[in-house]
Amino acid sequence: MSNPIFIPEKEIADNLHMPQVIELMEDVFKHPEKGDMVPKIYLEEGLEGNDFRAMPARHGKYSGIKWAALFPQNGARGHGPSVSATIIVNSLENGRPLAVMDGMLITSYRTAAVTAVATKYLSNSNAETAAFIGCGFQTNFQIEAICNVRNIKTIKLFDLDKDKANELCSNINVDNCEVCDTIEDCVRGSDILTTLTPSRSPFVKAAWIEPGMHVNAIGADAEGKQEFEDNVANVCSLFVVDDKVQAFHSGESQHSENKESMLDLFHIVKNGLPLGFDHETGISFFDSTGLAIEDVALAGLIYENYIGV
Amino acid sequence: MSNPIFIPEKEIADNLHMPQVIELMEDVFKHPEKGDMVPKIYLEEGLEGNDFRAMPARHGKYSGIKWAALFPQNGARGHGPSVSATIIVNSLENGRPLAVMDGMLITSYRTAAVTAVATKYLSNSNAETAAFIGCGFQTNFQIEAICNVRNIKTIKLFDLDKDKANELCSNINVDNCEVCDTIEDCVRGSDILTTLTPSRSPFVKAAWIEPGMHVNAIGADAEGKQEFEDNVANVCSLFVVDDKVQAFHSGESQHSENKESMLDLFHIVKNGLPLGFDHETGISFFDSTGLAIEDVALAGLIYENYIGV
Repeated sequence: MSNPIFIPEKEIADNLHMPQVIELMEDVFKHPEKGDMVPKIYLEEGLEGNDFRAMPARHGKYSGIKWAALFPQNGARGHGPSVSATIIVNSLENGRPLAVMDGMLITSYRTAAVTAVATKYLSNSNAETAAFIGCGFQTNFQIEAICNVRNIKTIKLFDLDKDKANELCSNINVDNCEVCDTIEDCVRGSDILTTLTPSRSPFVKAAWIEPGMHVNAIGADAEGKQEFEDNVANVCSLFVVDDKVQAFHSGESQHSENKESMLDLFHIVKNGLPLGFDHETGISFFDSTGLAIEDVALAGLIYENYIGV
Repeated sequence: MSNPIFIPEKEIADNLHMPQVIELMEDVFKHPEKGDMVPKIYLEEGLEGNDFRAMPARHGKYSGIKWAALFPQNGARGHGPSVSATIIVNSLENGRPLAVMDGMLITSYRTAAVTAVATKYLSNSNAETAAFIGCGFQTNFQIEAICNVRNIKTIKLFDLDKDKANELCSNINVDNCEVCDTIEDCVRGSDILTTLTPSRSPFVKAAWIEPGMHVNAIGADAEGKQEFEDNVANVCSLFVVDDKVQAFHSGESQHSENKESMLDLFHIVKNGLPLGFDHETGISFFDSTGLAIEDVALAGLIYENYIGV
């Protein structure tokens, strides 16, 4: 039996281009018939909130799985990044493993690219101000992705660690970047708000969210995680999740009692916005939990680029 | 970030010794507190009964996952073995992936070794005749494992493809090996019966199973698979599964209405046989579906041997 190839990280990095990843993710959500998946499966490690997650899916000619570990205390212990991930890509012709690759950069790109897809469909087309709460590793990818689909002139940043926000600000290539003193300052007046924290208690008040705003809630991707007040769905004209089963369990929407009217991104990309939604006055909310099909679709593309299909 | 090492198949093969694997599997079942797992997760491919299975677990110092593909038509299509599997081993200290390895040989050894553990606890200690239905790749491992725990003098084989049974017979190192013409001939008169087929319809009648016999039902490891008549539990004095949640969904016991009195192998290895069970007259049945902790425990051992811990 032939072993899968191990794709080096440099090759993955060389093959990730945000516009191409956004195009792929739009295709993933436009054509659900190309894939299938199982909602994330969690294996709790039991100590200190550590967990492992298995994300199996198939997409196009490939099947695969992402196996990720979240160890929040890694940084404080000198153990490096809190997240690690490995992806296996298999052939759908005979099931054989074709490739094994690190899943970190792939996760960052696909997560940001899906935010871009949601932002493209849901936000006002003349949005100019984008705010980001949380300035960790993922935020740079999100900024790049959103700037790919909207002509962003001002970026507002907030992080509990102001040095991190300042450092990110100094590296961003936009007309205007400002670091905010409070979360409220950061939220108010922005056209697009993106939250990227591992918080387990809400820090964005629904009252701060203004008409015409689009929100991307990225941080909550496991049971118990929460960035927005419980009632945030009540102020939204349009609440969209990436996948209902997974988001209702693990996303921001797990805290909402108002789930009946929520749509998924597959529906929006395939069918467009609901009649009557007005970008000028409406508030749209995208609850992202990260789907296994996104990983497998992108890992399949990386594999094809690597072997030169 | 350091990449996991890829352990070559030759290194895996060199490090698999049946007595050591049996000892490890006995420890896995004796000390459930050392591990944890999620029951197998199936991703149906939709065509021709193909499926992928994710098996996440942790055991001892390691976490990990086996990702396996079952493509029953592979052989007929010239695509090689119907099964393929990859295992990722992670550190429980920081979650990082440590090693990636092929999972086929590990699956064969751990499956056979668990059969040996069940056979050691459940079968008559002077059992001499072992029958095997199905002479595929796995059967040789099962024979080796059972011969490790019982002094087997006669082996009886049956396969729909008699040539396969004859070939296996000629390669077995026992006093006496016979290939049977019918399944009934193979079952009757044996002390230990082991079934190893991918059947989806029962072919062993409960009436053929005799007092004093121990049965290992290995084939049924997915919904819809079945080797024994629905009522087989009714003739058994002791019905043991590897794990109740998984076996009741995917094992031979999925077809039984009589699940209340079933025990799991953890219970038997930890607490011994129930009072009143008599090896001379009783019938014991072991329903094996294959557990993720078995894979992770053995893959962890292979990793330690490889890096020289």
